[in-house]
Amino acid sequence: MTTQDETSAATLDADRVQGHGYTANKEAYLRRLKRIEGQVRGIARMVDEDKYCIDILTQVSAVTKALHAVSLGLVEEHIGHCVVGAASEPDPDLRAEAIDVKVKEAADAIGRLLR
Amino acid sequence: MTTQDETSAATLDADRVQGHGYTANKEAYLRRLKRIEGQVRGIARMVDEDKYCIDILTQVSAVTKALHAVSLGLVEEHIGHCVVGAASEPDPDLRAEAIDVKVKEAADAIGRLLR
Amino acid sequence: MTTQDETSAATLDADRVQGHGYTANKEAYLRRLKRIEGQVRGIARMVDEDKYCIDILTQVSAVTKALHAVSLGLVEEHIGHCVVGAASEPDPDLRAEAIDVKVKEAADAIGRLLR
Amino acid sequence: MTTQDETSAATLDADRVQGHGYTANKEAYLRRLKRIEGQVRGIARMVDEDKYCIDILTQVSAVTKALHAVSLGLVEEHIGHCVVGAASEPDPDLRAEAIDVKVKEAADAIGRLLR
Repeated sequence: MTTQDETSAATLDADRVQGHGYTANKEAYLRRLKRIEGQVRGIARMVDEDKYCIDILTQVSAVTKALHAVSLGLVEEHIGHCVVGAASEPDPDLRAEAIDVKVKEAADAIGRLLR
Repeated sequence: MTTQDETSAATLDADRVQGHGYTANKEAYLRRLKRIEGQVRGIARMVDEDKYCIDILTQVSAVTKALHAVSLGLVEEHIGHCVVGAASEPDPDLRAEAIDVKVKEAADAIGRLLR
Repeated sequence: MTTQDETSAATLDADRVQGHGYTANKEAYLRRLKRIEGQVRGIARMVDEDKYCIDILTQVSAVTKALHAVSLGLVEEHIGHCVVGAASEPDPDLRAEAIDVKVKEAADAIGRLLR
Repeated sequence: MTTQDETSAATLDADRVQGHGYTANKEAYLRRLKRIEGQVRGIARMVDEDKYCIDILTQVSAVTKALHAVSLGLVEEHIGHCVVGAASEPDPDLRAEAIDVKVKEAADAIGRLLR
């Protein structure tokens, strides 16, 4: 997890003061992930009980969709919080660098989601 | 899970005799799903510990990828087992119907994965 | 569905004589691809006219979706034609090998679509 | 194209002054789209010449990938330009509203790409 270490001091300070973008919705994320965990366990049960492959695939698609929704929420909060936070850095030089880092991180993360 | 109920008697018989396509790899699927379940739990832990959103997104992408691999395995086995099984039905009328059902099921499942 | 009765010993021969799974819908595929080509040209025009990036993205998503639909049609016809054709091969040894080849091809193609 | 109409006057002003995020790379985008258009035409040719379905699917996957790369570039430039532009709006009230609009637009666009 070197990503965080690479971010400029300015944005790290901002993060420290404000928490992460998803912090406000932390409980909602934990609930969603708990539900996804249960869905994965349900798929294992279906395999164990020799359920029909197509029905298992339907459940796998549902979990993938639920994970996409979680990703999208995190990306939105990264943009609205980390990118915008970087753009609010008062020192112009630090700001330009911080924006570059945060936008690049967002684009890389979205690229990984698309693959 | 009405899908199975809709399948013709012929293919259900074939399924009963031969087991599902994934049955031979059942233990491997259960291990993979166990690992995915653990990964989802790990993501919840990251959220709970306020880890950096981009690092969480990286883990979510990894789980999505692992689920895609499971899906692909199930689709491959559905094609190699259920579609091929339907094509081996001796009665030509039942065969044509069984093939149609199984190919349609495969295409629908793949369509759901692509969305 | 006469596919199975029509396939001959060597599925390659069958392909040569009967054309591919998508041949029956060839005109429809050509029309869809023509439309997609026009959509791509439309996106280039939007870029050229400095249209808003989000509106361009919406169009790119529409083209991606249209390509997915084409892919799905081709996969369905590959399964219903090439895989089923392989399963109809009378020689059991050739049949097993032909099925393996066609199922593997289908799974690889679907895997590329998912990535 | 109501999206643009919905954007606040503040961000529209910013857009007017700075051009769109992708403007600097306009020629590169036009070249890439030209190449994608040619690839789509190549796929139509393959269908017309009854090429093997799997080879056509490989080409469709390549075009989808190329479109994803274009999308990702546009998203990155939207974030680095439009979102950051909104965050630079001096009036705090206009700024908060402009950020909300731009972040929401980005998330919606990414969501459409993921589907």
